[in-house]
Amino acid sequence: MNRVVTVSREFGSGGREVGVKLAEALGIPFYDKELISMAADDMEIAEEAFRRYDEHIVEDDSLDRRFHHAFSEIYTIPMSDQIFLAQSNVIRRLAAHGPCVIVGRCADMILEDSVNLFIYSKMKRRVARLLELEPGSTEREMERRIREVDRKRKDYYQYYTGNTWGRSQNYHLCLDSGLVGVDGCLKAAMAYLGVLCGEAQ
Amino acid sequence: MNRVVTVSREFGSGGREVGVKLAEALGIPFYDKELISMAADDMEIAEEAFRRYDEHIVEDDSLDRRFHHAFSEIYTIPMSDQIFLAQSNVIRRLAAHGPCVIVGRCADMILEDSVNLFIYSKMKRRVARLLELEPGSTEREMERRIREVDRKRKDYYQYYTGNTWGRSQNYHLCLDSGLVGVDGCLKAAMAYLGVLCGEAQ
Repeated sequence: MNRVVTVSREFGSGGREVGVKLAEALGIPFYDKELISMAADDMEIAEEAFRRYDEHIVEDDSLDRRFHHAFSEIYTIPMSDQIFLAQSNVIRRLAAHGPCVIVGRCADMILEDSVNLFIYSKMKRRVARLLELEPGSTEREMERRIREVDRKRKDYYQYYTGNTWGRSQNYHLCLDSGLVGVDGCLKAAMAYLGVLCGEAQ
Repeated sequence: MNRVVTVSREFGSGGREVGVKLAEALGIPFYDKELISMAADDMEIAEEAFRRYDEHIVEDDSLDRRFHHAFSEIYTIPMSDQIFLAQSNVIRRLAAHGPCVIVGRCADMILEDSVNLFIYSKMKRRVARLLELEPGSTEREMERRIREVDRKRKDYYQYYTGNTWGRSQNYHLCLDSGLVGVDGCLKAAMAYLGVLCGEAQ
């Protein structure tokens, strides 16, 4: 398979895990948080700023002001936009290197020839999955956290791409992980991607 | 596989063909237009009325008025709603009989335990596919026709389910047929459904 695969995902759906396993199965690199530090190196911006702006739009601009002086030459657009542009450049550079799996960060809209996956699952399933991975919260707390992360991802996607997050037509393959689990999604994705290699399934 | 599979589709995406081949591969019945005549038998309503109201909402109610006298006892809700209800009953009855593939008609929202597929493709691909199947129109005419049919399906879905047509979270598996063709969608769908059977893929 000679294409970059992007994975967008609802929080708690296991989409990142699908991405990791897909990269393993295809024998290609996987990128997620690594993108952030690579982009940080690229722009020589402090990691703290990156983490703060990563995949959500910040309304409070106190950090922008703090960084204002340090970047006075390039500070013509908001810091969050600069970080998005820096990440986009890193994503394009990674894609130019060869096939890989990239999770999140609007990579589906930044790249032109990628195969784009969206992984999601019903709220109840996601709450149960996350509580199993990170016990300690109540169901209500976890649901609130999931809604908050999803809202940020949605706003971020809408802001930078002008498209609706989760609209199937934005992606090539959308998979509900609740019904078949991470491994089921992997099987379906491998079958779909296999067609692109002209491989017999 | 012990589940009903529903297939929603953009016009020209080949979604119906995916449904037909899926039913063949699974060895289960396929239902599309047949639903209409079954529902017609069910309510003893003329086929003409059914065809007219099938999968779109009619604003001009001249036909309602024509049928008004014939159904005066049951005419408490608009004809299109009656037909939707009759079709819904047929869909539930078919599902109760055993696994089958049902295309369109909001079957995904009518049934509770179905596995729901959505098939779509970029406009350019759909225009090319339909022009190959039915030559004679210009690309412009075909695109207009596709947009019109899709708009009707979208409105119908929105009206009867309150949900957004094409929103991935409404379905379990959404497939862009433009990239991998009907057979590619079939392979991915069989892999996804195979997990539900506990079959090795």
